Formats: sequence, C-alpha cells, structure tokens
Amino acid sequence: MTFQKEINIVEKSRGFHIITNEVLKQIPEIEKIKIGIANVFIKHTSASLTLNENVSSDVLRDMEKYFGKYVPEDNLFYEHNYEGSDDMPAHIKSSILGQSVSIPITNGKLNLGTWQGIYLGEHRNYGGARKIVITLFGE
Amino acid sequence: MTFQKEINIVEKSRGFHIITNEVLKQIPEIEKIKIGIANVFIKHTSASLTLNENVSSDVLRDMEKYFGKYVPEDNLFYEHNYEGSDDMPAHIKSSILGQSVSIPITNGKLNLGTWQGIYLGEHRNYGGARKIVITLFGE
Amino acid sequence: MTFQKEINIVEKSRGFHIITNEVLKQIPEIEKIKIGIANVFIKHTSASLTLNENVSSDVLRDMEKYFGKYVPEDNLFYEHNYEGSDDMPAHIKSSILGQSVSIPITNGKLNLGTWQGIYLGEHRNYGGARKIVITLFGE
Repeated sequence: MTFQKEINIVEKSRGFHIITNEVLKQIPEIEKIKIGIANVFIKHTSASLTLNENVSSDVLRDMEKYFGKYVPEDNLFYEHNYEGSDDMPAHIKSSILGQSVSIPITNGKLNLGTWQGIYLGEHRNYGGARKIVITLFGE
Repeated sequence: MTFQKEINIVEKSRGFHIITNEVLKQIPEIEKIKIGIANVFIKHTSASLTLNENVSSDVLRDMEKYFGKYVPEDNLFYEHNYEGSDDMPAHIKSSILGQSVSIPITNGKLNLGTWQGIYLGEHRNYGGARKIVITLFGE
Repeated sequence: MTFQKEINIVEKSRGFHIITNEVLKQIPEIEKIKIGIANVFIKHTSASLTLNENVSSDVLRDMEKYFGKYVPEDNLFYEHNYEGSDDMPAHIKSSILGQSVSIPITNGKLNLGTWQGIYLGEHRNYGGARKIVITLFGE
C-alpha cells in the first residue's frame, strides 16, 4: 500500500516549530498500515524538516540561537545575498538539517520515541507558506 | 515484502560507535530481499545515526572531538540545560547528524560502500539503552 | 514496483555539483510510478548528497566556502590525516550533509520544489569517480 498527499503549511515565523499534529491530521490513512515508513518532505531549500524534542519550548529557541550563531548572516562572506542577509544562511541550514524525515509506521501510528516530534525549521525572515509531501508505504 | 523489528542497543559511552554488525545480526530476513531499502531509525533526540568510515578508530574520535568543539557545552548560551550541560548540545548534534539512515538492499545484503559503516552517535554522558527500529522493504 | 540501478559518476572537482539531470537520465523507469519514493545513495564517506538551490551557481560556491570555514582542515586538531589534510574534514562534511536523499515520486516524476536540485558534495581534493545507487519504489 502506498499513499501520498501534498499539503500546505501556513507561513511560520522564523525559527523552529513542532508540526507533528499538523502532519498527522492530514493522514488518517496511516491507520491502515501495520508496518511501513512515512516520508515527510519539504519542497523548499530555505526551510528544513528534522526530529527533535517535543515538549520543551526552550529547545526550539536554543536550536534557532545555535544555528543563528554557527550559520551567521554575513553579507561580506557570502556571494548569494541579493534576497537579503538571511538568504544564504537559510540554504545552508536547510542542507545541514535536511529536507525530509523517514519515520517507521507500526500498528497504524508513527513509531516515534516518547520525546520525538517533527520540527519545521523556517530559516527565512518571511518564508511564506511551505509545501510538504507526505508519502506512506507499507502493508 | 516489508519487515520491521525494534531492538535495544545496550548503553554506549559518549561518542561514536560502529553498529553495523549489531544491526545486521538482528535482520537475517534481509537475505530474502533482492532489491529494496533498509531504514534504520533511532527513537531518541540526544543520539544520532549516520554513516561513516568503518575501519579507522581515529575517525570515531575525531568526530567526537569536532562536534565537541563546534557544538560546545555552554550553560550560559543555552536555556535548555536542566539535565546538564550535555543536554542541549546532544539535541543539536542529533538533528545535525540525523536520526535515521536509509540504505539500499541489493541481493540480500546492505549495499554499502567498502568503507561505510553505521555510526551510532551517543551524545549524552549517560544516555542509557537506546531503541532502534529497523524497517526493510523491497522484493 | 521496485527498481534499482547503480551508476558511476565521473570524478568531480572539490565542491558542490548539481546532478539532478545526471541522475534522471539513468532512470526512465520512473515514468511508470504514479506515487512513490526515489532514494539516491552515495557509497562513500568523503562525499555527500543533499538538496539545495538549483539555479544560482553562487550557492554552490558559498556552500563550499561555508563548509571550508566551519569544517576546517587542521592537521594539528585531527588524528586521522594520513591521506592529507582534506581527509577528516571530508568525513565530517559527509555525515553533516548526509549520504542519501529520499524524494517523493508523483505522476512519474521527482516531486521536487521549483528550486530544488540534487547536490553532490565532493569533499576530497581528488575523490575519483563516485558510485551512486538509485532505488525507486511505489505503484
């Protein structure tokens, strides 16, 4: 069994956001899959998808703070900055963190650890809405 | 064909560890798959799975040294440190390195390059046992 | 339906290269898949695969510049340098950026965003030819 759906995520502020529930409510079909994989993919190069701690909001803030420091805005360092100083750092963060997550499906649910949630990293100041493709497969 | 198994990895010391054989001995079913994919997923946000050089133990040490320097412990920088100064850096390393690897299966074996092994990154000082879900699919 | 092919990529210069078309021309079979996933996997630990901006060549150069600065060559810092000062940094970049991408297939095509292309990161000075395994599955 294979299932796929493309969804829109409304514009998020710059930083990290937990979107696990926003994803799950789009895919009731997951209940039909006993074992399989869910691939969640973002169709952008200045945003990212990763998994991280789903309870403490300070983790979201510390992630943004860390990547702000280690992938700094610097118009003198980067050539690619005609869309603004947040442009090239956003591309780098997107590749470091990745643009998809592949999560096991077990007994009709995402088999995440207790503390794992799906993070959307919005790396632009005004990134606009984002498109995500969810693909489920298994049996 | 889809196959899935959840396994426990006994506590590892902080740093990087090659777990290719520990994974393989759990999935003799891989022999039945001519072509497909193996997804190996760790159910934690302070450990990671990645692929790297499977021969030289100095690569394991240099990986730990690099990430210790570039994702430093710093209680004054991070808000999220009530579990200790290794807490937030562990979350960041986990997202940078990733929590799953997807490896081709060819003729009943993982189709890894000669030098590729599966690395478990234990980013906490005392991370405890870790849970891994292995999902195989193909035909 | 599952399809798999191993291909050789001729030696690239150190840095980042867009290989989307080089991959696509090897897999005309993708047209038969209505919905599914394409996994593209590089069998090396000193090169990487990631997705990033597919138009501006300055993004390719800035990626190389960024990783050259934040994963610097430093024979005094790393133990693992008998193949040269580009050796250990290449392993680190490979794990940070990742060695595979999983991309949705929709209506017989890779369902990439408008600006997304497949990047091969060649992190050695003289990396030689590289082997890539492409696995397609879906229905």
